[in-house]
Amino acid sequence: MSKPQSNNAISPSRSEDFPEWYQQVVRHADMAENSDVRGCMIIKPWGYGIWENIQFLLDRMFKETGHKNAYFPLFIPLSYLQKEADHVQGFAKECAVVTHHRLETNSEGKLVPAGPLTEPLVVRPTSETIIGAAYAKWVQSYRDLPILINQWANVVRWEMRPRVFLRTTEFLWQEGHTAHETSAEAMEETEKMLRVYEIFAKEYLAIPVYTGEKSASERFPGADRTFCIEAMVQDRKAVQAGTSHFLGQNFSKASGIEFLSREGKKEHAWTTSWGVSTRLIGTLIMTHADDDGMVLPPRIAPTHIVIFPITPKPETADKVRENCKALADQLKLQTFAGQPIRVEVDYRDINGGVKSWEWIKKGLPVRVEIGPRDLENGTVFVGRRDKGVKDKTSYPAGEFALKAADLLQEIQDNLYQRALAHRNEHTCKIDSKEEFYKFFTSQNEDKPEIHGGFAHTHWDGSIEVEEQIKNNLKVTIRCIPSDSTEPGTCPFTGNPSKQRVLWAKSY
Amino acid sequence: MSKPQSNNAISPSRSEDFPEWYQQVVRHADMAENSDVRGCMIIKPWGYGIWENIQFLLDRMFKETGHKNAYFPLFIPLSYLQKEADHVQGFAKECAVVTHHRLETNSEGKLVPAGPLTEPLVVRPTSETIIGAAYAKWVQSYRDLPILINQWANVVRWEMRPRVFLRTTEFLWQEGHTAHETSAEAMEETEKMLRVYEIFAKEYLAIPVYTGEKSASERFPGADRTFCIEAMVQDRKAVQAGTSHFLGQNFSKASGIEFLSREGKKEHAWTTSWGVSTRLIGTLIMTHADDDGMVLPPRIAPTHIVIFPITPKPETADKVRENCKALADQLKLQTFAGQPIRVEVDYRDINGGVKSWEWIKKGLPVRVEIGPRDLENGTVFVGRRDKGVKDKTSYPAGEFALKAADLLQEIQDNLYQRALAHRNEHTCKIDSKEEFYKFFTSQNEDKPEIHGGFAHTHWDGSIEVEEQIKNNLKVTIRCIPSDSTEPGTCPFTGNPSKQRVLWAKSY
Repeated sequence: MSKPQSNNAISPSRSEDFPEWYQQVVRHADMAENSDVRGCMIIKPWGYGIWENIQFLLDRMFKETGHKNAYFPLFIPLSYLQKEADHVQGFAKECAVVTHHRLETNSEGKLVPAGPLTEPLVVRPTSETIIGAAYAKWVQSYRDLPILINQWANVVRWEMRPRVFLRTTEFLWQEGHTAHETSAEAMEETEKMLRVYEIFAKEYLAIPVYTGEKSASERFPGADRTFCIEAMVQDRKAVQAGTSHFLGQNFSKASGIEFLSREGKKEHAWTTSWGVSTRLIGTLIMTHADDDGMVLPPRIAPTHIVIFPITPKPETADKVRENCKALADQLKLQTFAGQPIRVEVDYRDINGGVKSWEWIKKGLPVRVEIGPRDLENGTVFVGRRDKGVKDKTSYPAGEFALKAADLLQEIQDNLYQRALAHRNEHTCKIDSKEEFYKFFTSQNEDKPEIHGGFAHTHWDGSIEVEEQIKNNLKVTIRCIPSDSTEPGTCPFTGNPSKQRVLWAKSY
Repeated sequence: MSKPQSNNAISPSRSEDFPEWYQQVVRHADMAENSDVRGCMIIKPWGYGIWENIQFLLDRMFKETGHKNAYFPLFIPLSYLQKEADHVQGFAKECAVVTHHRLETNSEGKLVPAGPLTEPLVVRPTSETIIGAAYAKWVQSYRDLPILINQWANVVRWEMRPRVFLRTTEFLWQEGHTAHETSAEAMEETEKMLRVYEIFAKEYLAIPVYTGEKSASERFPGADRTFCIEAMVQDRKAVQAGTSHFLGQNFSKASGIEFLSREGKKEHAWTTSWGVSTRLIGTLIMTHADDDGMVLPPRIAPTHIVIFPITPKPETADKVRENCKALADQLKLQTFAGQPIRVEVDYRDINGGVKSWEWIKKGLPVRVEIGPRDLENGTVFVGRRDKGVKDKTSYPAGEFALKAADLLQEIQDNLYQRALAHRNEHTCKIDSKEEFYKFFTSQNEDKPEIHGGFAHTHWDGSIEVEEQIKNNLKVTIRCIPSDSTEPGTCPFTGNPSKQRVLWAKSY
């Protein structure tokens, strides 16, 4: 973590107070804010523009893997939720409950709920139960399978300790829900979508992730197996950035998704569900932002390049502005990652430093300045968001236009490599309990978040060990990596261990 | 309304029972279905595909007119709703109210609401109040204006008589919310977005609409002026398909959206809101579908062209299928209305008639059959959904590929012209009370919906006349067309009238 570069930097810095730095980055980038409704955020245009790109790119990947979108009701009857025992235990504690369908003015002139419902409705925290009820009607025969559907929607989970993007009462997400003839096919789907998330995180968000399976205690309520992608952010904590669940026949039994098999037998379908949410934006911030504000990987940035006309002399001002527009037009004809380059000219008549810092804090990948001298020299002055604020390069204007896409890709790659290096630097194998405890214990009492990072450590599979470590260190098993197969000894119990698992503190 | 063309037709036909025909078209096209949650629909992939196209195309128009997307909370505190007196009156009767944030298992093992909220929350029926509260924080100076924001979201209005797509408790929509320095600028925005809706309905949905202003009694609760687009569907009733509201300073006063003007004075902003919803899909069905099922304008169809391999002989089956795939690949490289042609080859090994009728009922614009004889002759056999089911044409394969886009545009134009002719045929000027009553009174008691259609008739502006006609005939003023300026005499009162207004029965 480097030092703040100027007075315009985010205060506090990452090393001073990471959680507060995060809030300030969101605020200064104008991405989102808290609303008066406890735990609910307002996603502002810059933040929503990132979400639109996530939607567009992921949706394309879902469609390429054979899925179609649909939309299911916001409200779930209480009786539906109750059908799957583990599921209701997992979600009942945090539901928004609709009990009335009307308002009335009482004798004091105050609005009060009226029209009580005979059965209360829950605002969906996730849609397995309501979608399961629909699939039960749709599926009669093996010919009706597979069902490969995704939904883009809002969901509500009552949050006691909300944090913008990372954990909010209402959030936006996608939830895929599929039903299959066989266990093997459902498992293949579960793994395929996990892989989609992994590729998406890497290629578009420039976030390297570990993938693997959750331990039983961290499973989705009602799932047989839960898989996840786990990112390491800059304070070395983990963020679970996406999950893919193999639901077995649990929900199809609860909802009655039955079909006549090829052999003419009644069978229950095998289902999966998988989702990512606006939490990805929080992960993006904590991964890439620096002490100057947000840093956006170009592939996900609402705007790639902003051009500032520098107009100190009235006599050349028009010429400079025309030149900026001409460059913008030229750039828009080029493509980056298969889409037209997104360019904006910021003509606003405000202080150049203020203007520049606005865009720096928003994390815009490339800033271009054109002034009277550049006009004379046929040059442009270019700043990259992944470099220092003052580290700018002069390019011949024509050359810049031609290599803009390469430059954006260079930034994309650089951000990924930086995140990867950070993650690798703070991930290690640990084989003794003492070393493990030391690794996860901060040397500095003021900053308990500055611990070692991620540890690959053997585990005998016992829930007791998991609980003890969670209680002692707030460290949990983030996942059991699928490529971790070498047996060893659990350093906590001395028992044999089938494989190393990934331990970390997490958001 | 033509006669059913075969046993596969929708039953009942349009002329037998229009409302039931509508439900059956939706069902047979597999666009949506009712859920177990009263009034809430499930939008199935084919219906949602239409909505995705509506979103994509409208969103582009919004962005071209300078708007950005954002997202505001689902929940509105009761106190917010109460701020604007007319608004709360208009919406309080139909709100889903969240009163608890947890569920508990009671002594009988039943889930019951727990964790009562100190202030109940309303699930947004529309977002003027919650967005107004945000704008009040964002706006300090005239420099912060205009704010041009749109939101794609779900909203809930408790419906006692739901009808899929047309009137549902939960529906999907977009709501634009803008704030401006001056009344004139807000009015310009209101009219601009009305025009966007009009063009969208015409160019993409192939629906001709009347535009104009609502009378005071039909205004949006809290608006100064409400403008709308009104479509005539095939039973000659009107559907209000989109609205654009000039909210004056009502909501900015209620929410406190104040700014320091150019003259240094504190002023209230002028706001607008405008929206269209999944109701557009209902309008689309009632406008274009026929007794064989759905008919989709190509510009909005999830798939443009479907190709069927006809494989009666095993020895040529592979060759036929390869040929279908080759044609599909060729078509995908062509563009229609600026986008790649969307083609599917339906390889399913099911009865050809069943397969063909599935796509006919879904409203797919162009069906192409390729069989062994076509292979020999180098031809394809093409059916257009806007023509009769048996009215097919043989084309040289190469020629068809080259003119597919033209064909799609021809279908698009034909559907528009057909809808326009229907509307014009059933729209007239009426100048006497007697004729007016006769026009809106069915000759056939079994089918009260078969009345005259739309009437341009003078009106003296009195609410009493409006109410009487509504009570007697269920006919309302759909809008006061802006191009209707010729004064005359109100046939109901003999009073002078400023202009003719548009009367109709409506959904």
